Amino acid sequence: MSKKRNTTLKELSKELSLSISTVSRALNDHPDISQDTKERVRKLAKQMNYVPNLFARGFRSRETHILGVIVPNISHLFTSTILKGILEEAELRGYRVIISESNNNEVKQVEMLNTMTQFGVDGVLMSLARKTTNVEEILKILNRIPIVLFDKVSSKIPCTQVVINEEEAAFNAVEHLIELGKQRIAIIKETENSYNSEKRFAGYLRALNKYGIPVRDKLILSTEDISLGNGRRLTNILLSMKKRPDAIFAITDNAAIGAIKALHKFKVKIPEEIAVVGFSNSINSTIVSPALTTVDQPGDKIGRTAVRFLIEEIESPTNEVNTKTVEIKTSLIVRDSSLMV
Amino acid sequence: MSKKRNTTLKELSKELSLSISTVSRALNDHPDISQDTKERVRKLAKQMNYVPNLFARGFRSRETHILGVIVPNISHLFTSTILKGILEEAELRGYRVIISESNNNEVKQVEMLNTMTQFGVDGVLMSLARKTTNVEEILKILNRIPIVLFDKVSSKIPCTQVVINEEEAAFNAVEHLIELGKQRIAIIKETENSYNSEKRFAGYLRALNKYGIPVRDKLILSTEDISLGNGRRLTNILLSMKKRPDAIFAITDNAAIGAIKALHKFKVKIPEEIAVVGFSNSINSTIVSPALTTVDQPGDKIGRTAVRFLIEEIESPTNEVNTKTVEIKTSLIVRDSSLMV
Repeated sequence: MSKKRNTTLKELSKELSLSISTVSRALNDHPDISQDTKERVRKLAKQMNYVPNLFARGFRSRETHILGVIVPNISHLFTSTILKGILEEAELRGYRVIISESNNNEVKQVEMLNTMTQFGVDGVLMSLARKTTNVEEILKILNRIPIVLFDKVSSKIPCTQVVINEEEAAFNAVEHLIELGKQRIAIIKETENSYNSEKRFAGYLRALNKYGIPVRDKLILSTEDISLGNGRRLTNILLSMKKRPDAIFAITDNAAIGAIKALHKFKVKIPEEIAVVGFSNSINSTIVSPALTTVDQPGDKIGRTAVRFLIEEIESPTNEVNTKTVEIKTSLIVRDSSLMV
Repeated sequence: MSKKRNTTLKELSKELSLSISTVSRALNDHPDISQDTKERVRKLAKQMNYVPNLFARGFRSRETHILGVIVPNISHLFTSTILKGILEEAELRGYRVIISESNNNEVKQVEMLNTMTQFGVDGVLMSLARKTTNVEEILKILNRIPIVLFDKVSSKIPCTQVVINEEEAAFNAVEHLIELGKQRIAIIKETENSYNSEKRFAGYLRALNKYGIPVRDKLILSTEDISLGNGRRLTNILLSMKKRPDAIFAITDNAAIGAIKALHKFKVKIPEEIAVVGFSNSINSTIVSPALTTVDQPGDKIGRTAVRFLIEEIESPTNEVNTKTVEIKTSLIVRDSSLMV
């Protein structure tokens, strides 16, 4: 099918023998233009299927009412719940949203950030790609439009950051296991020091420390990709130890479900022999059997909150640098995987 | 933080005492411009932090190398797998992707389609909002840029459509239940006649018909929102019947998992008393116990294929109307929920 170009203002002006500026002002209902002219222009614009160039309009008025979102991985379950919150809140407030993925690639992340800025989004919500170290390009953009970071954030970027109370949440999860009488608590975390993994690990250490439980290096396992498969693999390693752990705290639900699968295979009783706790309260955590004790991360609320702060910065710009960190509370959901009766 | 505007070509031209056209051609490495001038222009552009207006550039060259994607619900599990395929294939082919959600709202769908077109995407991949009836606006856009539909498609829109073999897949699933000796096979489907639900229902009817099994209206249950909760609710209705079904075919995994939960609660043996089959092969289908027999819908392949056809239309435009339907093959994955030994 051959595609027609957009009708331009220039073509309309030629057809009507009016200046481009008159045509433009007529279409924007400018008071200087007569009602007659406005009607003539609108009629032809409709006939010729003229579509206003939103970008050019947005650039003039500095507002397109479009928010850009960049996430590491759009098909990640927890990301989905945040996106849901973002989309709902944006809709409520009359903003449209375009979403893009960095695929955890720092170069692509900056490329998409530039693309969205050039496209004229009013602001950007961003969860950082793994190992984002060079923030210079992000700071340049931040100089032009507001950015709010969420979930994967960085203290190197002076902007509003919406996160959950990662450290406290992990502390509570591990404290719960200690209160059950567990003493050899393993952790499955990420190799690379991501913001989330680091904070959750810190919460784990603080809980052990508070209760005077020694930190055993052998029980601290790390993986590059914190997936179900790797949760299973690392649990097999734990099961091969002379002295097995009596609980596993995995920093994602998927890894915790992998742990449950491995424990099932070796007929280990959950939670009597080994209790399991995950992190995120994904839908899978209720589908697995036994149901998984996990930290409820309100993705929806994170998304909504991030949108609210971003729109505030768009609509009421100030000369102050926004560097506040907003912490969304989580709660521990205790289910059969750690329910000792 | 106060935001700076983009530096414009005009500002550069004023600063350099050169015409806008000269500056523009210098930045685009035009052969008519001297090497000296090019260097002067580039140096200042860098100093003044000039970012080329991608949209304007794209509009001139008719190519931004950006694809737009519009889906009903971005956080839907199956949609996630399609998006993954789209993003991977686009990346391989040097295209960027921006994604947006219609939230199953026809008005928003057209609005996003217009926005993306005005932004200058090279083409759009779209899965239609539920109950999309007025396709006039979509046809207008289709006149300007290529559109490829996937998953939720419509015969009213003359363009390439990428779907799975819905009817055949459902036929195979129901035939499998009949081969197990099941005779009273219930179906849980959507109330509203969506493309997918309609085709899957047709496959169910064809299978019963082929094996001379009477169609029982009581065993055909419909719901507006084909969720886990509604799967459970409708299964409770089936269990309250004097003559219970001996198998349930739910047209989504979530509804099938809801069915399994309800059967568990009433201690019905799966699959001996009632076998269950779902549709999608989502990650949940392996996490539930017993593991769910389901139709593997290769979302990844649907996404990749849709991107390939769209890029072909972008890069090799023809005057022919593309109306082909591309059917991606599915396969039935038999697991414990229908494994009779």
